[in-house]
Amino acid sequence: MSWVDDSNAALLTDLYELTMAASYHGHGMSGRATFDLFVRELPPRRNFMIACGLEQALQYIENLTFESDSIDYLRSLSLFSEDFLTYLSELSFTGDVWAIPEGEVVFEREPFLRVTAPLIEAQLLEPFLINCITFQTMVASKAARVAIACRDRSFVDFSLRRDHAADAALKAARAAFVGGATGTSNVLAGKFYGLPVSGTMAHSYVMAFEDEEAAFRAYMQDFPEAAVLLIDTFDIEEGARRAARVANDLRDQGMRLRGVRIDSGDLAPRARSVRKILDEAGLEDTGIILSGDLDEYRIKDLLDDDVPVDSFGVGTQLGTSADAPTLGGVYKLVADDRGPKIKLSAGKATLPGRKQVYRVEAEGHYQRDVIALESEEVEGRSLLKRVMRDGRRLGPPPSLSEAQSLCRDSLTKLPPALRSLEGQEDYQVDYSAGLEAMIEEMKAQSR
Amino acid sequence: MSWVDDSNAALLTDLYELTMAASYHGHGMSGRATFDLFVRELPPRRNFMIACGLEQALQYIENLTFESDSIDYLRSLSLFSEDFLTYLSELSFTGDVWAIPEGEVVFEREPFLRVTAPLIEAQLLEPFLINCITFQTMVASKAARVAIACRDRSFVDFSLRRDHAADAALKAARAAFVGGATGTSNVLAGKFYGLPVSGTMAHSYVMAFEDEEAAFRAYMQDFPEAAVLLIDTFDIEEGARRAARVANDLRDQGMRLRGVRIDSGDLAPRARSVRKILDEAGLEDTGIILSGDLDEYRIKDLLDDDVPVDSFGVGTQLGTSADAPTLGGVYKLVADDRGPKIKLSAGKATLPGRKQVYRVEAEGHYQRDVIALESEEVEGRSLLKRVMRDGRRLGPPPSLSEAQSLCRDSLTKLPPALRSLEGQEDYQVDYSAGLEAMIEEMKAQSR
Repeated sequence: MSWVDDSNAALLTDLYELTMAASYHGHGMSGRATFDLFVRELPPRRNFMIACGLEQALQYIENLTFESDSIDYLRSLSLFSEDFLTYLSELSFTGDVWAIPEGEVVFEREPFLRVTAPLIEAQLLEPFLINCITFQTMVASKAARVAIACRDRSFVDFSLRRDHAADAALKAARAAFVGGATGTSNVLAGKFYGLPVSGTMAHSYVMAFEDEEAAFRAYMQDFPEAAVLLIDTFDIEEGARRAARVANDLRDQGMRLRGVRIDSGDLAPRARSVRKILDEAGLEDTGIILSGDLDEYRIKDLLDDDVPVDSFGVGTQLGTSADAPTLGGVYKLVADDRGPKIKLSAGKATLPGRKQVYRVEAEGHYQRDVIALESEEVEGRSLLKRVMRDGRRLGPPPSLSEAQSLCRDSLTKLPPALRSLEGQEDYQVDYSAGLEAMIEEMKAQSR
Repeated sequence: MSWVDDSNAALLTDLYELTMAASYHGHGMSGRATFDLFVRELPPRRNFMIACGLEQALQYIENLTFESDSIDYLRSLSLFSEDFLTYLSELSFTGDVWAIPEGEVVFEREPFLRVTAPLIEAQLLEPFLINCITFQTMVASKAARVAIACRDRSFVDFSLRRDHAADAALKAARAAFVGGATGTSNVLAGKFYGLPVSGTMAHSYVMAFEDEEAAFRAYMQDFPEAAVLLIDTFDIEEGARRAARVANDLRDQGMRLRGVRIDSGDLAPRARSVRKILDEAGLEDTGIILSGDLDEYRIKDLLDDDVPVDSFGVGTQLGTSADAPTLGGVYKLVADDRGPKIKLSAGKATLPGRKQVYRVEAEGHYQRDVIALESEEVEGRSLLKRVMRDGRRLGPPPSLSEAQSLCRDSLTKLPPALRSLEGQEDYQVDYSAGLEAMIEEMKAQSR
């Protein structure tokens, strides 16, 4: 099958990036330009974003190369000169990248990423960077909302089958972990990113045996320490009693029923009656895992209702961010070798110049952010860090556990109103005096 | 970067598929089982689906293999016996697959795909098959709605940057083409699937030049036959006049302005005034391309309003099917070596047995479908075709153009009410007498 990989990812771009590049090349436009990647506006019901996807973006940039197979395809389009194709075949990224670390809280209009490089190199990155960073940021942000809803309970990414094709399933598992998931059901994501993998059983397993009890017994014997039994294939309470009976039968052989999963029906009353059945059978240590079209809203309702539950499996809604399945990331020219650039179109305005984002904290909470020119001195902690210089990474990336910790800490520092799952609360993002002055000056010039 | 490819795609599965497989293996459960892949319920505002994604599903099945690197990772989880790992390392798919061809209209509850194979082989496919087929089906179905809205105008997939990670961008371009797009902006999708690629220019291109006129002139000179100029970076009407002036200046040198693109603002009045400017400049042949958060609803409104437009660029809403971003595909055990299987859970019931889907046509339109047992003789055209026997493909796949033609023909045969973009019209899907009798008998047995 044809897959994206490091050898062809440079072609995962819009044709116009290449025609523009050919034109820049033909006109000798090789000066350095700066582009910002940011989100103009948060989607409905979102109060913040969790930056995510930087590591894959940097790997892409570092490996950017047009191999001969790609060049041959481009030649076949009869759009490009041999001179340009030769240039492309020798191209690699030689610029600088600044970025907000994965796991940090970010708000609209704030650059996540700033690229400064020769114009063509910087321009070509546009589609991949937006695709890579906004998808993972969208899922990490959704996961952070689920984490807030879960309070002290854990949740696991179950989204593989509903994610948008193969790569999304990997990146969703990764971003969900950054946002607070304890692991994933996705084995390849576990392998690639070192994530804890977990799983229970499917209804088809129960149906493949003579009866439910035979299925439970077989699974516990095969996984004497890790078994989580799915108890809702037929009747949930009956399933819970059978699971308890099998667990108690096998207890003498040193086996322990780790948990039961309920995947259908009205979860709150079901979980309560199952908890009672397990407790009465002396299985106080056996956990209850709930799944089945869960999202942060349903989880909040369940926990508000004091449902006995230990962990949640969250699939479709997490991996597709189904209530807000797109995030309007853009990548805009903000400066070139002639100075700062601004776009003034209504609703599509950009902030000119090379910028930094500062965060002001007080009493353990984020108070406000300031978007400033790079050259200004501004109060607060600077969020954009230099991660690449002259095309080279400046150090190993933080681990995913570090990104998850940063996210957890960031969430605790959010103003409490922003942790609400409903409505949209605005966080204060100001422009510095220098940036305001530059905008006014450029507006005046354009008149 | 870590990418999915043929060597590791077998691990793109949920952990429970492997623990269940280990259990089946340990208990010698190697009989043949049949699974159906289907969608229980159409999403809101969807009246039909366009089957898509089969080709990648078959390539996955045909190449299914656990390479040593995958086995080593599984061993590291301390869940599996060496005996099972050896079995996995030697596993390949040996079963049969029946499927509805790509491009065909499908309705809820109808199996798109039927797999019959030794239990473990059939079970392991679940997450990938659902992921692969429901995503492409979702996008092809969205694209078909856009095609209906476009009437005789064309549209192009512009979704790359908003798709959910890298693989979705490829599969969205492919599925959009099956559903009726004339091409894509995505270069790698063009290369992989032989799709026409097209593109215009970005606002950053215009901003990278001294002024708009210089940008237009440069681009037309560089692409004398293919230039489409983006005219809304500053003032749209002014942009149109500049484009016309440049085009007329360069006409003597044999250059032709193919089109102009408008990507912002109130598209209907803008397109009308731009058309007038172009016509008055003698550029009747220069097309107008509209883009910017378009979907089937906005396109219908624009064409209902007689907007002068030649082609649409459709991005975010197409590639993410944003108004219905998930499709609830499931893959269910319907028979094993002991006979048909049924699941009776409320809202999650399955149809037992090996089945075929028949479509009855009259007066050039689809009238109703019948889901029947494989052994029955039923009126109508059978939709499920055998595509794989004993693990081998039975022939080359239809080309994507053939799938697109099948889709176009299928759409014209839909009952007219089902072509509506609003509300949800139900198509008649019956169960055959034999299937009804089997369901009743199995319900009675389970009581």
